[in-house]
Amino acid sequence: MPQLLRLQNFGVSRDGFGAGEGQSLEHPFGHANPADLVGWCFATASWVNRTDPGGSRGLDDYFTRDFTNNIGAEIMGRNKFGPQRGPWPDDDWRGWWGDEPPFHTPVFVLTHYPREPMQVGETTFYFIDAAPDEALEQAKAAAGDKDVRLGGGVATVREFVEAGLIDTLHIAVAPVELGRGERLWTGPTELDDRYHHDVVPSSSGVTHHLYWRD
Amino acid sequence: MPQLLRLQNFGVSRDGFGAGEGQSLEHPFGHANPADLVGWCFATASWVNRTDPGGSRGLDDYFTRDFTNNIGAEIMGRNKFGPQRGPWPDDDWRGWWGDEPPFHTPVFVLTHYPREPMQVGETTFYFIDAAPDEALEQAKAAAGDKDVRLGGGVATVREFVEAGLIDTLHIAVAPVELGRGERLWTGPTELDDRYHHDVVPSSSGVTHHLYWRD
Repeated sequence: MPQLLRLQNFGVSRDGFGAGEGQSLEHPFGHANPADLVGWCFATASWVNRTDPGGSRGLDDYFTRDFTNNIGAEIMGRNKFGPQRGPWPDDDWRGWWGDEPPFHTPVFVLTHYPREPMQVGETTFYFIDAAPDEALEQAKAAAGDKDVRLGGGVATVREFVEAGLIDTLHIAVAPVELGRGERLWTGPTELDDRYHHDVVPSSSGVTHHLYWRD
Repeated sequence: MPQLLRLQNFGVSRDGFGAGEGQSLEHPFGHANPADLVGWCFATASWVNRTDPGGSRGLDDYFTRDFTNNIGAEIMGRNKFGPQRGPWPDDDWRGWWGDEPPFHTPVFVLTHYPREPMQVGETTFYFIDAAPDEALEQAKAAAGDKDVRLGGGVATVREFVEAGLIDTLHIAVAPVELGRGERLWTGPTELDDRYHHDVVPSSSGVTHHLYWRD
């Protein structure tokens, strides 16, 4: 089986924003309410941060339970690790993801400020200054024979799309308008020149857009 | 996490038949053409019997790649193992599933004619004369902490639905009429008194029906 680079469960607003304006430590999505943007995830039985036994097991759950399926590594932009910009502050802050991050694999954090790897729970974060194709090569090697997940955020996704490196994309368009922030695209047909495209409305109100290539 | 009993990728015709009339060794689906009924599976990248690297990775592929996801055992009716009826013939026939069956777990075959377990490749078939709830208890024990797949066929699915034992169902309605054969239901709303229900049309022409309960 070929090793894929997969974007999964990436939420955008109807007007194409993956995060609002003014991201900060307290507000990872800026002025956007996370529940508006990615609340469909939280409602599913297989949501990776679920702590109680409830949740739906319909269409949306197929997407959240595929999060870890055959994934051996993740690549994320620095802004998905934390809100700092520029040189790393000399503190012991260990990222957005708590004591047991949901990745459980090597995670490659793209940054112009490399630093020593950091192990948090079962996840090790590697901070690398690398072009998309070099980062993908490292992540594939770390993933064994499994696939690599592209975690985001918006700027990182755009960079990897432009470089033609992503094999499959799952983007969930939420029924909310943000007006400003980090813009992924002008609309879901923007990738149709490069990918097959399934449009799948869900009873939760989001529309799942699935892209793949031959 | 609770251990679930899951029906997955079960194909029926628009008029509710899971197999045609006249099932035999050469024609496991009777007068029905398997490609009409379950051809949507064959077209996906993750179809369990795929031998070449092609295939689609859109909506339908989420269903085929969930086939083995967190599954630790299967229960199937005798008619899914082979076409024989009554006492087993004294031969060395080893079922429909070839030298390397796609299950790779213990499989419990329901029959009124128990016989010794049979290992084929990485799959061991256990032939048990048991009521649905007893069979499920054995399969759950064999599955460790994973879920159990209900494999079919139609009569077995109906029996387990009647007994209230199935937690989630995925039934794919194909755009074909069979007129006669093994009938699963009068229509997709038949289970709505007992389950939540998502209706998901696919670009392949099938409509996926997903059922779950609280």
